[in-house]
Amino acid sequence: MSGTNHPTGTGSGHSGQDPKALIATLERHFAGLRDLEHASSILSWDQEVMMPPGGAPARAQALATLTSVAIEKACDGELEQVAAHLGRIADELAPRDRRRVELARRKLAEVRAVPRALAVEFALAKSEALEAWRIARENSDFRSFAPSLARNLDLAKQIAEAKSGDADPYDAAIDTYEPGGTAAQFDPLLEELEDVTRELLGVVRQASPSQDSDHLSGDFPTDAQRKVVADVVRAMGIDPARSRLDDSTHPFCGGTGPGDVRMTGRYDAQDLRSGLFGAIHEAGHGLYEQGLDPELARSVLGGAVSMAIHESQSRLWENLIARSLPFWTHWTAHIAGHFPTALKGASPEQLWRSVNRVQPSLIRIEADELTYNLHIILRYRIERELFAGSLSVDDLPERWNTEMQASLGITPRNDAEGCLQDIHWAMGAFGYFPTYSIGNLYAAQFLEAARLDLQDLDTEIARGQMGGLSEWLAKQIHSQDRLFTADQLVQRVTQKPLSVDAFRRYATDKVQRLTN
Amino acid sequence: MSGTNHPTGTGSGHSGQDPKALIATLERHFAGLRDLEHASSILSWDQEVMMPPGGAPARAQALATLTSVAIEKACDGELEQVAAHLGRIADELAPRDRRRVELARRKLAEVRAVPRALAVEFALAKSEALEAWRIARENSDFRSFAPSLARNLDLAKQIAEAKSGDADPYDAAIDTYEPGGTAAQFDPLLEELEDVTRELLGVVRQASPSQDSDHLSGDFPTDAQRKVVADVVRAMGIDPARSRLDDSTHPFCGGTGPGDVRMTGRYDAQDLRSGLFGAIHEAGHGLYEQGLDPELARSVLGGAVSMAIHESQSRLWENLIARSLPFWTHWTAHIAGHFPTALKGASPEQLWRSVNRVQPSLIRIEADELTYNLHIILRYRIERELFAGSLSVDDLPERWNTEMQASLGITPRNDAEGCLQDIHWAMGAFGYFPTYSIGNLYAAQFLEAARLDLQDLDTEIARGQMGGLSEWLAKQIHSQDRLFTADQLVQRVTQKPLSVDAFRRYATDKVQRLTN
Repeated sequence: MSGTNHPTGTGSGHSGQDPKALIATLERHFAGLRDLEHASSILSWDQEVMMPPGGAPARAQALATLTSVAIEKACDGELEQVAAHLGRIADELAPRDRRRVELARRKLAEVRAVPRALAVEFALAKSEALEAWRIARENSDFRSFAPSLARNLDLAKQIAEAKSGDADPYDAAIDTYEPGGTAAQFDPLLEELEDVTRELLGVVRQASPSQDSDHLSGDFPTDAQRKVVADVVRAMGIDPARSRLDDSTHPFCGGTGPGDVRMTGRYDAQDLRSGLFGAIHEAGHGLYEQGLDPELARSVLGGAVSMAIHESQSRLWENLIARSLPFWTHWTAHIAGHFPTALKGASPEQLWRSVNRVQPSLIRIEADELTYNLHIILRYRIERELFAGSLSVDDLPERWNTEMQASLGITPRNDAEGCLQDIHWAMGAFGYFPTYSIGNLYAAQFLEAARLDLQDLDTEIARGQMGGLSEWLAKQIHSQDRLFTADQLVQRVTQKPLSVDAFRRYATDKVQRLTN
Repeated sequence: MSGTNHPTGTGSGHSGQDPKALIATLERHFAGLRDLEHASSILSWDQEVMMPPGGAPARAQALATLTSVAIEKACDGELEQVAAHLGRIADELAPRDRRRVELARRKLAEVRAVPRALAVEFALAKSEALEAWRIARENSDFRSFAPSLARNLDLAKQIAEAKSGDADPYDAAIDTYEPGGTAAQFDPLLEELEDVTRELLGVVRQASPSQDSDHLSGDFPTDAQRKVVADVVRAMGIDPARSRLDDSTHPFCGGTGPGDVRMTGRYDAQDLRSGLFGAIHEAGHGLYEQGLDPELARSVLGGAVSMAIHESQSRLWENLIARSLPFWTHWTAHIAGHFPTALKGASPEQLWRSVNRVQPSLIRIEADELTYNLHIILRYRIERELFAGSLSVDDLPERWNTEMQASLGITPRNDAEGCLQDIHWAMGAFGYFPTYSIGNLYAAQFLEAARLDLQDLDTEIARGQMGGLSEWLAKQIHSQDRLFTADQLVQRVTQKPLSVDAFRRYATDKVQRLTN
């Protein structure tokens, strides 16, 4: 066997070495880890978008093996020693290198906290649960999914417990998606957001109901929808040479970084909103990925800050831009050109009102901007109870329906439009949901800051010029990768810590305009 | 760090252990290696079929890292010890387990012979050469590709030398694609094949030229071609629930085994042959992959025997079936239905003659059955000289053109239709080409054997019933995976060692019919 086939670095410490060389060693290891993420990301994308059904069992095994290999590589002895030594001399490092070491040590501690067998079992369980969920949702049969969900929940809890030490395991679950985020941070924000929402819903209810008809349900051939969507995301700044936009059952944005962004959409031939806003949402994510610094593509510094920051980008484009009157001022003529029958004679203001109808509904991703956050808060509370064990998986459907009635005043007719509607828990993603609403708060705060720099933003949007905003976001947020934490980033970009204030101003203003 | 994060097995030998347990350990390691192959296979497929251009640099790195990880895992200490111990007690094992050990030790020896840094450099070089080749071919500019080709050749030679010990490195190159194959085995077969070919070409030339017009060039809309191809490969036995058929610049068959076969095609709107026969060729490969035993999908015993056996399946369907009169007896009406203008009034015999016109041409994959082998023999001789250093990369285009004139009597007008036409050397695949012609020999010999069991084969094919042949091939060849070597397999299936005899009989008969 060749000696080159084994990693070096079983020596006893690196205290004599140049910090630059140690940083280079650290980055070499992380480049390998990023490559494994690249592989997993493409395998997952392929599974959702391309793979024939017969490929599922082998794919689950391959993804589990990649998980296992990544853990093994993260536990490499040389990497461990270098990271530990760099941690001890962190104060001597330049800020950028200090951040590298902080991120690296955080990642390694996370990986090492969890037994490899448990992590691999979770990877397999998630793949199997996804298949079970797909079938259960199609048949609206929660019972068939319950065992897989229970297993996912049990494993996710075990992993969170392994990571959390003495702290609340649910915080460890949140931390997976929102580094540094805790329930204690989210609770007051979401409570205030709920108050704002209920107050504004009261205003909407008291206003005389709009007599406008709904212009966006009707006959919208999906091929024409795909063309419209391609034009809109292109105008947002998505580069076709570095991205794809495909169909999938559940829209998402994946890919492998700034050179290769993979967005998906789904289209409803009877309603333009689902396809259009879904694609704009994913393109918001896509712009974030595309705007990451290519120089950091294989670095520990590379990638998105957190899921809430990621969702702030998707929600900003989906709602604050694409549900604004200036957007429809430009795009109404273009879109009506593709649907001359359905949209004959519709005015920008009519379409703007059509995409902003506030009314309680059953499906989160089709909800209006206000009630959307109630959907999230419901999920956030339910998953905390699932995690704490005060709610059992078997009681989930009933609890879901009771909460929907209490919060939104409507009750799902079946589990497919109730607790089976979302993919997240089937993917083992507990702690993810709150990042959507936190993302809405960031979005409003970021856009307020953008408006200070881009005084003519509404005029530009009304001319179809979205590039100025894209560039501002890329410069301020996307190209910063993980140089800052979410808290640091929002402070740098908006000069303030995160609060509900900007969202309150934005939503109040919008409700006033809609009810006038 | 958790103890579960490190492989076990640094102990001193396994001599006391139950052979069954050792086999299970061996297979557990190989399952992980097969999973890594799965990942590389999907990443490579994606690169050719789906990836936007911006993804290329990151993809090259990711594939190189997967190569590196696979080497590391193959060099695992426990695996090494178990394989060595099983090698010592091979005589005590059941034949199937003995074959497992033989395949495993062969694979491990191969991996361990090559320094990891060299293998990783080759992986990166191949990715870069592929991009360079694509551009060079588009511009018909060999000079821009020459440095990449020289680097590929140099690295391929270094690897072959590391593997071959005292033997000829070119044999080690062949062995990568054709385990156990050597130039000494191929030379007499290919010489005899060349004699047969030249003799039959003489017969064709002396016959009065057919007055038939060429029915298969004309107006063939590619969407209709895709439909025809889907129907034909379905009738061959390809299962849509376990496969995909996409477009790509260079048709190939990939995927991850029997549950997920990925075939690609390309279509020429002015000629039906390119798309139809290309897809049937890949579907022949696809049936092999689909017919592999799912129980062996992650085993060291799982997978195709060799590339020549693989090509025997593609060439059998492409030529011996799809270029036969019975095939056209059934499919003429069906295909003409999709191209009512171009194929109006064409008879099965006219189309059969159109797909069997024997004439020297420049492009290998569009060549007729006879001259095709001359294309292969030319490549075989040239790559041996490149490997031996008696031909330099810079002199390749001139040499190619001289040989084309000498062998086929025509000279390429440019390098795109000359030495840049094939992807193989850009992929670093030296030693692959001869397996096509060896595959043609196997194909003829297998079909002779099939006819003994399937007496009504021509009648069935003439009725569009291709399932009987598919099942025979699956039972005799595909589902045997790697239980036997190529030599053993051909002996078992045909009761004879490989020879040119069956091909000679087949080709002589066909030329007689075509010239009558």
